[in-house]
Amino acid sequence: MSNFGFGELRLVNPYDVAFREARSAVKAHKVLADAREYTTVAEAIADCTLVVGTTSKGHRVLDHSLHRLELGGRIIAKKLVTAPVALLFGSEKFGLSNDDMSHCHWLMRIPSREEHASMNLGQAVALCLYEIIRSPAAAKAKPEAKQAANAEDLNRLTILLEEVLEHSGYVHARVEESTRLKTRRLIRRMNLNAHDAEVWLGMLRQILWKLVS
Amino acid sequence: MSNFGFGELRLVNPYDVAFREARSAVKAHKVLADAREYTTVAEAIADCTLVVGTTSKGHRVLDHSLHRLELGGRIIAKKLVTAPVALLFGSEKFGLSNDDMSHCHWLMRIPSREEHASMNLGQAVALCLYEIIRSPAAAKAKPEAKQAANAEDLNRLTILLEEVLEHSGYVHARVEESTRLKTRRLIRRMNLNAHDAEVWLGMLRQILWKLVS
Repeated sequence: MSNFGFGELRLVNPYDVAFREARSAVKAHKVLADAREYTTVAEAIADCTLVVGTTSKGHRVLDHSLHRLELGGRIIAKKLVTAPVALLFGSEKFGLSNDDMSHCHWLMRIPSREEHASMNLGQAVALCLYEIIRSPAAAKAKPEAKQAANAEDLNRLTILLEEVLEHSGYVHARVEESTRLKTRRLIRRMNLNAHDAEVWLGMLRQILWKLVS
Repeated sequence: MSNFGFGELRLVNPYDVAFREARSAVKAHKVLADAREYTTVAEAIADCTLVVGTTSKGHRVLDHSLHRLELGGRIIAKKLVTAPVALLFGSEKFGLSNDDMSHCHWLMRIPSREEHASMNLGQAVALCLYEIIRSPAAAKAKPEAKQAANAEDLNRLTILLEEVLEHSGYVHARVEESTRLKTRRLIRRMNLNAHDAEVWLGMLRQILWKLVS
Protein backbone atom coordinates (compact mmCIF):
# COMPACT_ATOMS: atom_id res chain seq x y z
CA MET A 1 0.00 0.00 0.00
CA SER A 2 2.73 2.44 0.94
CA ASN A 3 4.81 1.62 -2.14
CA PHE A 4 1.95 2.67 -4.39
CA GLY A 5 0.58 5.54 -2.33
CA PHE A 6 -2.57 3.99 -0.88
CA GLY A 7 -3.05 5.22 2.67
CA GLU A 8 -6.40 3.96 3.94
CA LEU A 9 -6.27 0.52 5.44
CA ARG A 10 -9.59 -0.55 7.00
CA LEU A 11 -9.89 -3.74 8.95
CA VAL A 12 -13.09 -5.61 9.72
CA ASN A 13 -12.77 -7.66 12.91
CA PRO A 14 -9.03 -8.24 12.57
CA TYR A 15 -7.53 -11.12 14.53
CA ASP A 16 -6.36 -9.01 17.43
CA VAL A 17 -3.11 -10.73 18.27
CA ALA A 18 -1.88 -10.67 14.68
CA PHE A 19 -2.97 -7.07 14.18
CA ARG A 20 -1.46 -5.72 17.40
CA GLU A 21 1.83 -7.49 16.76
CA ALA A 22 2.01 -6.65 13.07
CA ARG A 23 5.17 -4.81 12.18
CA SER A 24 5.13 -2.61 9.13
CA ALA A 25 7.77 -2.61 6.44
CA VAL A 26 10.38 0.14 6.64
CA LYS A 27 8.75 3.49 5.73
CA ALA A 28 5.23 1.98 5.80
CA HIS A 29 4.49 2.52 9.50
CA LYS A 30 2.02 5.31 8.75
CA VAL A 31 -0.37 3.00 6.89
CA LEU A 32 -0.50 0.59 9.81
CA ALA A 33 -0.65 3.35 12.45
CA ASP A 34 -3.58 4.99 10.62
CA ALA A 35 -5.47 1.73 10.03
CA ARG A 36 -9.05 1.86 11.28
CA GLU A 37 -11.05 -1.00 12.75
CA TYR A 38 -14.69 -1.78 12.05
CA THR A 39 -17.03 -4.48 13.20
CA THR A 40 -18.98 -4.83 9.95
CA VAL A 41 -18.18 -4.60 6.26
CA ALA A 42 -21.12 -2.19 5.84
CA GLU A 43 -19.53 0.34 8.22
CA ALA A 44 -16.08 -0.03 6.69
CA ILE A 45 -17.28 0.77 3.17
CA ALA A 46 -20.01 3.29 4.03
CA ASP A 47 -18.43 6.26 2.19
CA CYS A 48 -17.46 4.34 -0.96
CA THR A 49 -19.40 4.54 -4.20
CA LEU A 50 -17.81 1.46 -5.73
CA VAL A 51 -17.08 -1.71 -3.79
CA VAL A 52 -15.05 -4.44 -5.46
CA GLY A 53 -14.48 -7.88 -4.00
CA THR A 54 -11.45 -10.03 -4.80
CA THR A 55 -11.69 -13.76 -5.33
CA SER A 56 -9.33 -16.46 -6.51
CA LYS A 57 -12.09 -18.93 -7.19
CA GLY A 58 -14.19 -17.29 -9.84
CA HIS A 59 -16.94 -18.78 -7.72
CA ARG A 60 -20.08 -16.68 -7.88
CA VAL A 61 -23.15 -17.70 -5.99
CA LEU A 62 -24.52 -14.19 -5.97
CA ASP A 63 -24.63 -13.55 -9.69
CA HIS A 64 -21.80 -10.99 -9.63
CA SER A 65 -19.93 -9.89 -12.71
CA LEU A 66 -16.37 -11.19 -12.51
CA HIS A 67 -13.62 -9.12 -14.15
CA ARG A 68 -10.00 -10.05 -14.67
CA LEU A 69 -7.60 -7.71 -12.88
CA GLU A 70 -6.50 -6.15 -16.19
CA LEU A 71 -10.02 -4.83 -16.80
CA GLY A 72 -11.10 -4.33 -13.18
CA GLY A 73 -8.00 -2.30 -12.37
CA ARG A 74 -8.70 0.07 -15.25
CA ILE A 75 -12.31 0.57 -14.15
CA ILE A 76 -11.22 1.26 -10.56
CA ALA A 77 -8.49 3.68 -11.68
CA LYS A 78 -11.08 5.71 -13.61
CA LYS A 79 -13.57 5.69 -10.75
CA LEU A 80 -10.95 6.76 -8.19
CA VAL A 81 -10.56 10.09 -9.94
CA THR A 82 -13.98 11.17 -8.69
CA ALA A 83 -14.95 8.95 -5.75
CA PRO A 84 -13.61 6.64 -3.03
CA VAL A 85 -13.49 2.97 -3.99
CA ALA A 86 -13.28 0.02 -1.60
CA LEU A 87 -11.22 -3.00 -2.55
CA LEU A 88 -12.21 -5.96 -0.35
CA PHE A 89 -9.84 -8.78 0.52
CA GLY A 90 -10.84 -11.80 2.55
CA SER A 91 -8.67 -13.79 4.89
CA GLU A 92 -5.84 -15.69 3.24
CA LYS A 93 -7.38 -19.00 4.22
CA PHE A 94 -11.04 -18.56 3.37
CA GLY A 95 -11.33 -15.48 1.20
CA LEU A 96 -14.46 -13.35 1.30
CA SER A 97 -17.66 -14.87 2.63
CA ASN A 98 -20.90 -14.72 0.66
CA ASP A 99 -22.06 -12.11 3.13
CA ASP A 100 -18.96 -9.99 2.46
CA MET A 101 -19.45 -10.39 -1.28
CA SER A 102 -23.09 -9.31 -1.11
CA HIS A 103 -21.80 -5.76 -0.46
CA CYS A 104 -19.80 -5.74 -3.70
CA HIS A 105 -20.79 -4.21 -7.03
CA TRP A 106 -18.64 -6.75 -8.84
CA LEU A 107 -15.79 -9.17 -8.26
CA MET A 108 -12.25 -9.21 -9.58
CA ARG A 109 -9.76 -12.02 -9.96
CA ILE A 110 -6.03 -12.08 -10.53
CA PRO A 111 -5.25 -14.07 -13.70
CA SER A 112 -3.26 -16.80 -11.98
CA ARG A 113 -3.02 -20.39 -13.22
CA GLU A 114 -6.14 -22.44 -12.70
CA GLU A 115 -4.03 -25.18 -11.07
CA HIS A 116 -2.67 -22.69 -8.54
CA ALA A 117 -5.13 -19.85 -8.17
CA SER A 118 -4.95 -18.97 -4.48
CA MET A 119 -2.38 -16.33 -3.64
CA ASN A 120 -0.44 -14.89 -0.79
CA LEU A 121 -2.52 -11.97 0.54
CA GLY A 122 0.29 -9.41 0.49
CA GLN A 123 1.14 -10.30 -3.09
CA ALA A 124 -2.51 -10.16 -4.16
CA VAL A 125 -2.86 -6.67 -2.66
CA ALA A 126 0.37 -5.51 -4.34
CA LEU A 127 -0.85 -6.81 -7.72
CA CYS A 128 -4.25 -5.11 -7.49
CA LEU A 129 -2.76 -1.77 -6.44
CA TYR A 130 -0.07 -1.98 -9.12
CA GLU A 131 -2.72 -2.55 -11.79
CA ILE A 132 -4.54 0.56 -10.52
CA ILE A 133 -1.49 2.87 -10.56
CA ARG A 134 0.11 1.29 -13.64
CA SER A 135 0.51 3.75 -16.48
CA PRO A 136 -0.72 2.45 -19.84
CA ALA A 137 1.25 5.28 -21.46
CA ALA A 138 4.48 4.08 -19.85
CA ALA A 139 4.08 0.71 -21.58
CA LYS A 140 4.35 2.45 -24.91
CA ALA A 141 7.22 4.74 -23.95
CA LYS A 142 10.11 4.68 -26.33
CA PRO A 143 13.26 3.58 -24.59
CA GLU A 144 15.49 6.59 -23.97
CA ALA A 145 17.53 7.10 -27.09
CA LYS A 146 21.24 7.61 -26.69
CA GLN A 147 23.04 9.61 -29.33
CA ALA A 148 24.14 7.04 -31.85
CA ALA A 149 27.69 7.05 -33.15
CA ASN A 150 27.83 8.84 -36.48
CA ALA A 151 29.26 7.48 -39.72
CA GLU A 152 32.57 9.27 -39.25
CA ASP A 153 33.12 7.63 -35.83
CA LEU A 154 32.20 4.25 -37.25
CA ASN A 155 34.54 4.73 -40.15
CA ARG A 156 37.45 5.66 -37.85
CA LEU A 157 36.66 2.59 -35.81
CA THR A 158 36.53 0.36 -38.88
CA ILE A 159 39.90 1.61 -40.16
CA LEU A 160 41.49 1.19 -36.74
CA LEU A 161 40.14 -2.36 -36.35
CA GLU A 162 41.46 -3.22 -39.81
CA GLU A 163 44.91 -1.97 -38.80
CA VAL A 164 44.80 -4.00 -35.59
CA LEU A 165 43.73 -7.14 -37.48
CA GLU A 166 46.47 -6.59 -40.05
CA HIS A 167 49.19 -6.20 -37.41
CA SER A 168 47.91 -9.16 -35.45
CA GLY A 169 48.09 -11.42 -38.52
CA TYR A 170 44.30 -12.05 -38.59
CA VAL A 171 43.94 -10.86 -42.19
CA HIS A 172 45.23 -13.07 -44.98
CA ALA A 173 46.23 -11.22 -48.11
CA ARG A 174 44.01 -13.26 -50.45
CA VAL A 175 40.79 -12.60 -48.50
CA GLU A 176 41.70 -9.06 -47.47
CA GLU A 177 38.95 -7.26 -49.38
CA SER A 178 36.16 -9.59 -48.20
CA THR A 179 37.36 -9.31 -44.59
CA ARG A 180 37.31 -5.55 -44.93
CA LEU A 181 33.66 -5.58 -46.00
CA LYS A 182 32.71 -8.04 -43.27
CA THR A 183 34.49 -5.94 -40.66
CA ARG A 184 32.65 -2.84 -41.78
CA ARG A 185 29.29 -4.61 -41.43
CA LEU A 186 30.32 -6.14 -38.09
CA ILE A 187 31.01 -2.67 -36.69
CA ARG A 188 27.66 -1.34 -37.96
CA ARG A 189 25.73 -4.21 -36.37
CA MET A 190 27.07 -3.19 -32.96
CA ASN A 191 24.57 -0.31 -32.84
CA LEU A 192 27.14 1.75 -31.00
CA ASN A 193 26.29 4.97 -29.25
CA ALA A 194 28.74 7.86 -29.50
CA HIS A 195 30.22 7.22 -26.06
CA ASP A 196 30.82 3.51 -26.64
CA ALA A 197 32.41 4.22 -30.03
CA GLU A 198 34.91 6.45 -28.21
CA VAL A 199 35.65 3.69 -25.71
CA TRP A 200 36.28 1.19 -28.51
CA LEU A 201 38.53 3.66 -30.32
CA GLY A 202 40.60 4.09 -27.15
CA MET A 203 40.90 0.32 -26.63
CA LEU A 204 41.91 -0.35 -30.23
CA ARG A 205 44.45 2.54 -30.26
CA GLN A 206 46.13 1.03 -27.22
CA ILE A 207 46.13 -2.47 -28.73
CA LEU A 208 47.58 -1.13 -32.00
CA TRP A 209 50.26 0.77 -30.11
CA LYS A 210 51.27 -2.42 -28.30
CA LEU A 211 51.22 -4.45 -31.54
CA VAL A 212 53.53 -2.11 -33.45
CA SER A 213 55.89 -1.23 -30.61
CA MET B 1 6.15 -18.01 -9.55
CA SER B 2 3.80 -20.94 -9.33
CA ASN B 3 0.71 -18.72 -9.51
CA PHE B 4 1.83 -17.39 -12.87
CA GLY B 5 3.39 -20.55 -14.28
CA PHE B 6 7.10 -19.75 -13.97
CA GLY B 7 8.98 -22.90 -13.01
CA GLU B 8 12.70 -22.15 -13.07
CA LEU B 9 14.04 -20.70 -9.87
CA ARG B 10 17.81 -20.30 -9.88
CA LEU B 11 19.68 -19.25 -6.79
CA VAL B 12 23.16 -17.76 -6.65
CA ASN B 13 24.85 -18.49 -3.33
CA PRO B 14 21.64 -18.62 -1.32
CA TYR B 15 21.91 -18.17 2.43
CA ASP B 16 21.88 -21.86 3.23
CA VAL B 17 19.87 -21.86 6.45
CA ALA B 18 17.09 -19.77 4.96
CA PHE B 19 17.02 -21.78 1.74
CA ARG B 20 17.01 -25.20 3.41
CA GLU B 21 14.28 -24.18 5.82
CA ALA B 22 12.18 -22.38 3.24
CA ARG B 23 8.67 -23.73 3.04
CA SER B 24 6.78 -23.26 -0.17
CA ALA B 25 3.23 -22.01 -0.42
CA VAL B 26 0.54 -24.65 -0.87
CA LYS B 27 0.81 -26.11 -4.40
CA ALA B 28 4.13 -24.36 -5.07
CA HIS B 29 6.43 -27.07 -3.70
CA LYS B 30 7.61 -28.05 -7.19
CA VAL B 31 9.22 -24.67 -7.85
CA LEU B 32 11.22 -24.88 -4.65
CA ALA B 33 12.08 -28.56 -5.07
CA ASP B 34 13.33 -27.91 -8.62
CA ALA B 35 15.33 -24.80 -7.70
CA ARG B 36 18.95 -24.99 -8.78
CA GLU B 37 21.93 -23.51 -7.02
CA TYR B 38 24.86 -21.74 -8.66
CA THR B 39 27.97 -20.07 -7.34
CA THR B 40 28.13 -17.26 -9.90
CA VAL B 41 25.60 -15.14 -11.75
CA ALA B 42 27.39 -15.98 -15.02
CA GLU B 43 26.67 -19.70 -14.59
CA ALA B 44 23.08 -19.11 -13.53
CA ILE B 45 22.22 -17.10 -16.65
CA ALA B 46 24.44 -18.93 -19.16
CA ASP B 47 21.59 -20.17 -21.42
CA CYS B 48 19.62 -16.90 -21.45
CA THR B 49 19.65 -14.48 -24.36
CA LEU B 50 18.20 -11.58 -22.41
CA VAL B 51 19.18 -10.75 -18.84
CA VAL B 52 17.19 -8.09 -17.00
CA GLY B 53 18.13 -6.72 -13.59
CA THR B 54 15.62 -5.27 -11.16
CA THR B 55 16.34 -2.19 -9.08
CA SER B 56 14.33 0.06 -6.81
CA LYS B 57 16.85 2.85 -6.85
CA GLY B 58 17.02 3.89 -10.47
CA HIS B 59 20.71 4.09 -9.61
CA ARG B 60 22.86 3.33 -12.60
CA VAL B 61 26.61 3.43 -12.33
CA LEU B 62 27.03 1.18 -15.36
CA ASP B 63 25.18 3.22 -17.93
CA HIS B 64 22.28 0.76 -18.26
CA SER B 65 18.98 1.64 -19.83
CA LEU B 66 16.31 1.72 -17.14
CA HIS B 67 12.75 0.75 -18.10
CA ARG B 68 9.61 1.03 -16.03
CA LEU B 69 7.95 -2.33 -15.41
CA GLU B 70 5.09 -1.46 -17.79
CA LEU B 71 7.51 -1.29 -20.72
CA GLY B 72 10.09 -3.83 -19.53
CA GLY B 73 7.44 -6.48 -18.92
CA ARG B 74 6.13 -6.09 -22.47
CA ILE B 75 9.64 -6.46 -23.93
CA ILE B 76 10.32 -9.57 -21.82
CA ALA B 77 6.95 -11.11 -22.75
CA LYS B 78 7.78 -10.75 -26.44
CA LYS B 79 11.29 -12.13 -26.02
CA LEU B 80 10.07 -15.14 -24.00
CA VAL B 81 8.20 -16.44 -27.04
CA THR B 82 11.49 -17.36 -28.69
CA ALA B 83 14.20 -17.53 -26.02
CA PRO B 84 14.87 -17.95 -22.30
CA VAL B 85 15.06 -14.71 -20.33
CA ALA B 86 16.66 -14.23 -16.92
CA LEU B 87 15.07 -11.84 -14.44
CA LEU B 88 17.59 -10.99 -11.71
CA PHE B 89 16.59 -10.03 -8.18
CA GLY B 90 19.06 -9.01 -5.50
CA SER B 91 18.75 -9.59 -1.79
CA GLU B 92 15.94 -7.70 -0.09
CA LYS B 93 18.42 -5.66 1.92
CA PHE B 94 21.03 -4.67 -0.63
CA GLY B 95 19.57 -5.36 -4.06
CA LEU B 96 21.83 -6.33 -6.95
CA SER B 97 25.52 -5.48 -6.73
CA ASN B 98 27.28 -3.60 -9.51
CA ASP B 99 28.94 -6.88 -10.41
CA ASP B 100 25.51 -8.59 -10.70
CA MET B 101 24.20 -5.71 -12.80
CA SER B 102 27.16 -5.85 -15.19
CA HIS B 103 25.65 -9.10 -16.55
CA CYS B 104 22.37 -7.37 -17.44
CA HIS B 105 21.29 -6.03 -20.82
CA TRP B 106 19.11 -3.45 -19.12
CA LEU B 107 17.45 -2.69 -15.79
CA MET B 108 13.80 -2.51 -14.80
CA ARG B 109 12.08 -0.74 -11.93
CA ILE B 110 8.65 -1.08 -10.41
CA PRO B 111 6.86 2.29 -10.50
CA SER B 112 6.56 2.70 -6.73
CA ARG B 113 6.50 6.05 -4.93
CA GLU B 114 9.84 7.81 -4.80
CA GLU B 115 9.43 8.25 -1.02
CA HIS B 116 8.96 4.50 -0.59
CA ALA B 117 10.65 2.73 -3.46
CA SER B 118 12.11 -0.40 -1.87
CA MET B 119 9.77 -3.38 -1.90
CA ASN B 120 9.21 -6.71 -0.31
CA LEU B 121 11.03 -9.26 -2.49
CA GLY B 122 8.09 -11.65 -2.88
CA GLN B 123 5.81 -8.79 -3.89
CA ALA B 124 8.37 -7.44 -6.36
CA VAL B 125 8.68 -10.86 -8.01
CA ALA B 126 4.88 -11.24 -8.17
CA LEU B 127 4.52 -7.81 -9.81
CA CYS B 128 7.18 -8.49 -12.46
CA LEU B 129 5.73 -11.89 -13.35
CA TYR B 130 2.19 -10.50 -13.44
CA GLU B 131 3.26 -7.76 -15.85
CA ILE B 132 4.78 -10.46 -18.09
CA ILE B 133 1.69 -12.72 -18.18
CA ARG B 134 -0.83 -9.85 -18.09
CA SER B 135 -3.05 -9.82 -21.15
CA PRO B 136 -3.38 -6.39 -22.77
CA ALA B 137 -6.41 -7.75 -24.63
CA ALA B 138 -8.12 -8.62 -21.35
CA ALA B 139 -7.93 -4.98 -20.28
CA LYS B 140 -10.13 -4.06 -23.20
CA ALA B 141 -12.58 -6.93 -22.78
CA LYS B 142 -16.17 -5.89 -22.70
CA PRO B 143 -17.80 -6.91 -19.45
CA GLU B 144 -20.02 -9.92 -20.04
CA ALA B 145 -23.38 -8.63 -21.15
CA LYS B 146 -26.46 -10.00 -19.45
CA GLN B 147 -29.67 -10.06 -21.39
CA ALA B 148 -31.32 -6.77 -20.61
CA ALA B 149 -34.97 -6.66 -19.62
CA ASN B 150 -37.08 -5.75 -22.65
CA ALA B 151 -39.61 -2.94 -22.88
CA GLU B 152 -42.56 -5.25 -22.22
CA ASP B 153 -41.03 -6.43 -18.92
CA LEU B 154 -40.26 -2.87 -17.92
CA ASN B 155 -43.78 -1.79 -18.77
CA ARG B 156 -45.33 -4.58 -16.67
CA LEU B 157 -43.02 -3.58 -13.85
CA THR B 158 -43.96 0.10 -14.16
CA ILE B 159 -47.70 -0.66 -14.11
CA LEU B 160 -47.31 -2.95 -11.12
CA LEU B 161 -45.26 -0.38 -9.19
CA GLU B 162 -47.90 2.26 -9.95
CA GLU B 163 -50.60 -0.02 -8.55
CA VAL B 164 -48.56 -0.65 -5.42
CA LEU B 165 -47.93 3.07 -4.92
CA GLU B 166 -51.61 3.82 -5.44
CA HIS B 167 -52.74 1.22 -2.91
CA SER B 168 -50.10 2.31 -0.44
CA GLY B 169 -51.26 5.93 -0.61
CA TYR B 170 -47.98 7.24 -2.04
CA VAL B 171 -49.63 8.84 -5.06
CA HIS B 172 -51.65 11.99 -4.54
CA ALA B 173 -54.38 12.51 -7.13
CA ARG B 174 -53.19 16.00 -8.13
CA VAL B 175 -49.64 14.87 -9.04
CA GLU B 176 -50.64 11.50 -10.38
CA GLU B 177 -49.54 12.03 -13.98
CA SER B 178 -46.16 13.51 -13.10
CA THR B 179 -45.52 10.67 -10.64
CA ARG B 180 -46.39 8.20 -13.36
CA LEU B 181 -43.78 9.68 -15.69
CA LYS B 182 -41.16 9.85 -12.96
CA THR B 183 -41.82 6.25 -12.01
CA ARG B 184 -41.42 5.14 -15.59
CA ARG B 185 -38.03 6.89 -15.84
CA LEU B 186 -36.98 5.56 -12.43
CA ILE B 187 -37.57 1.99 -13.61
CA ARG B 188 -35.62 2.59 -16.82
CA ARG B 189 -32.64 4.00 -14.93
CA MET B 190 -32.29 0.72 -13.02
CA ASN B 191 -30.68 -0.93 -16.05
CA LEU B 192 -32.39 -4.17 -15.13
CA ASN B 193 -31.48 -7.45 -16.69
CA ALA B 194 -34.26 -9.88 -17.58
CA HIS B 195 -33.73 -12.01 -14.48
CA ASP B 196 -33.77 -9.10 -12.05
CA ALA B 197 -36.91 -7.69 -13.69
CA GLU B 198 -38.64 -11.03 -12.92
CA VAL B 199 -37.47 -10.84 -9.31
CA TRP B 200 -38.86 -7.32 -8.94
CA LEU B 201 -42.18 -8.37 -10.52
CA GLY B 202 -42.47 -11.20 -8.01
CA MET B 203 -41.73 -8.91 -5.07
CA LEU B 204 -44.21 -6.26 -6.18
CA ARG B 205 -46.95 -8.82 -6.89
CA GLN B 206 -46.62 -10.09 -3.35
CA ILE B 207 -46.65 -6.57 -1.89
CA LEU B 208 -49.74 -5.68 -3.95
CA TRP B 209 -51.52 -8.86 -2.83
CA LYS B 210 -50.85 -7.97 0.80
CA LEU B 211 -51.98 -4.35 0.28
CA VAL B 212 -55.33 -5.27 -1.26
CA SER B 213 -56.14 -8.29 0.91
